[in-house]
Amino acid sequence: MEGEEVSNKQIILNDYVIGFPKESDMIVKTSTIKLKVPEGSNAVLVKNLYLSCDPFMRPRMKKMEGSYAESFTPGSPITGYGVAKVVDSGHPNFKKGDLVWGVTGWEEYSFITAPVAFFKIGHTDVPLSYYTGILGMPGMTAYVGFYELCSPKKGEYVFISAASGAVGQLVGQFAKLMGCYVVGSAGTKEKVDLLKNKFGFDEAFNYKEEQDLEEALKRYFPNGIDIYFENVGGKMLDAVLMNMRLRGRIAVCGMISQYNLEQPEGVHNLFCLITKQIRMEGFVVGGYYHLYPKFLDMILPYMKEGKIEYVEDIAEGIERAPAALVGLFSGRNVGKQVVFIAHE
Amino acid sequence: MEGEEVSNKQIILNDYVIGFPKESDMIVKTSTIKLKVPEGSNAVLVKNLYLSCDPFMRPRMKKMEGSYAESFTPGSPITGYGVAKVVDSGHPNFKKGDLVWGVTGWEEYSFITAPVAFFKIGHTDVPLSYYTGILGMPGMTAYVGFYELCSPKKGEYVFISAASGAVGQLVGQFAKLMGCYVVGSAGTKEKVDLLKNKFGFDEAFNYKEEQDLEEALKRYFPNGIDIYFENVGGKMLDAVLMNMRLRGRIAVCGMISQYNLEQPEGVHNLFCLITKQIRMEGFVVGGYYHLYPKFLDMILPYMKEGKIEYVEDIAEGIERAPAALVGLFSGRNVGKQVVFIAHE
Repeated sequence: MEGEEVSNKQIILNDYVIGFPKESDMIVKTSTIKLKVPEGSNAVLVKNLYLSCDPFMRPRMKKMEGSYAESFTPGSPITGYGVAKVVDSGHPNFKKGDLVWGVTGWEEYSFITAPVAFFKIGHTDVPLSYYTGILGMPGMTAYVGFYELCSPKKGEYVFISAASGAVGQLVGQFAKLMGCYVVGSAGTKEKVDLLKNKFGFDEAFNYKEEQDLEEALKRYFPNGIDIYFENVGGKMLDAVLMNMRLRGRIAVCGMISQYNLEQPEGVHNLFCLITKQIRMEGFVVGGYYHLYPKFLDMILPYMKEGKIEYVEDIAEGIERAPAALVGLFSGRNVGKQVVFIAHE
Repeated sequence: MEGEEVSNKQIILNDYVIGFPKESDMIVKTSTIKLKVPEGSNAVLVKNLYLSCDPFMRPRMKKMEGSYAESFTPGSPITGYGVAKVVDSGHPNFKKGDLVWGVTGWEEYSFITAPVAFFKIGHTDVPLSYYTGILGMPGMTAYVGFYELCSPKKGEYVFISAASGAVGQLVGQFAKLMGCYVVGSAGTKEKVDLLKNKFGFDEAFNYKEEQDLEEALKRYFPNGIDIYFENVGGKMLDAVLMNMRLRGRIAVCGMISQYNLEQPEGVHNLFCLITKQIRMEGFVVGGYYHLYPKFLDMILPYMKEGKIEYVEDIAEGIERAPAALVGLFSGRNVGKQVVFIAHE
């Protein structure tokens, strides 16, 4: 098929999005692409197999202020993490037939001019979709956020919001493996059950059923919280701050509750940072990929020994990609949301 | 005078304070005290020479939630840092005639049952009042907050709010000595002049004259802020977050703009913590006093060489103590606010 011109379905962002994203903010457009990298180029051409729906994609749908995060371009395909197979390559690190994961386009085939955030897949005795999750960016995010930023110790009290998501479910299991007491919050009974029965959290609760988040946390953490893995922001952060313990640590991974608001909610209890000597640190995983081999050395044995569970929610077909992405923000997915595009 | 019973003027908190504290929230009461420590006790009895007015005292005037900071007791003398002379001592570390600094009562004489936060004054070739500021808790606060929490590097961009206060003026000078670019904010023209002309800040501005703090900071930091030494909280913090650079650090020392509000303002721009990978850490100096000798080794030579300036604002007499303390929150003081109580 190399060299051939084929049709290429693409997910195009219509315009910057305000409020909750809707399926209609994106359209599926069919264009064509030649499956060949020009002579002398460093580019790779890939066939996308799985696309990953991740919360960080929402901020990129709006015009971003500040220069450290890039907006999507209206009229162009959106981009995100995915698993792909190399069809043609002018890059020394990749050759035809390689399986890779990294940042690709939301389309059937992608021409990647600079494959800098691409990793060759070495272990194929797991589902390939796992490289959008447990073995990909979300796995690394959980690993870095928990071990590098939270300085966890055995016996500490750990709270995780959006805990059944791709990152949260792993952080909780890492914390359990370390001997911590772990509680997670999620938005449905089904997810709460998953947390307790599948992922082995000590406790879990449905934040939508709590009148008073501060009181709910007091109930689950009568001695307070040492480590908060922050995925949601807003009111939950305020409630957590009131329940943190002395010298607590907050790894700020995401603030999904805020992404669809025109004006983010105010957080009122930051004074607790002083009185409780809390360290709160935001991070993006991009700067930590040098740790990826070390991460695999840890997680692959855990997976083989059945010590880590992983749940994903797979939508079938690129036409379903917009709905799958939009569903993240109403919490429709159970576990990591992936879109299956094609077999190898 | 040891053993004698003497009259003892005390500053009594009437009741928990809501909103801006007023002089009338405190009364001056005269009681008596016997200048003798009971046989077999570990206590010390001191004559207070200087009392220190510090922003952290405001939160203690209200009923505090959370267990890590203690409220003052209505009907009793308030407490705070001060410089004192030991009149009698049952404690092995202190003897009659010693000059000390540490936490004492707002009164002429204090009976200290457990002198755990007391330091013997070794260097008396400086004004004794300096041990309420540059050589005491505020000096240590500036030292710890800047060197231990901010990981400063030569050439970095440093912003300090409430910059002419006891802590801010020192942080700015430490940053200049390290080769940073330093800007401070304050609330009067006189203070702004001090920052630029006395303390050697590169720039300074009056936050009250700025319509848009975010724009003001963009003007002074076109390349953004690496280090923010936070003394005020609220709107200033929001404006700073929008102007922070990648991997910036925020040492949260105080939030004086929030202390008199019934409900603290909301901070809206915490999402910047993620996109810019900012570390924000609250601290109280109490846990760092083991560094005090190291701090003196650094600062005393700087003072002798004239490399560090220090400005204090001294009110005369214990009757003026309530007004001096209240004045902190309207920014009436210029430099460190101290109350002179008595000569040795």
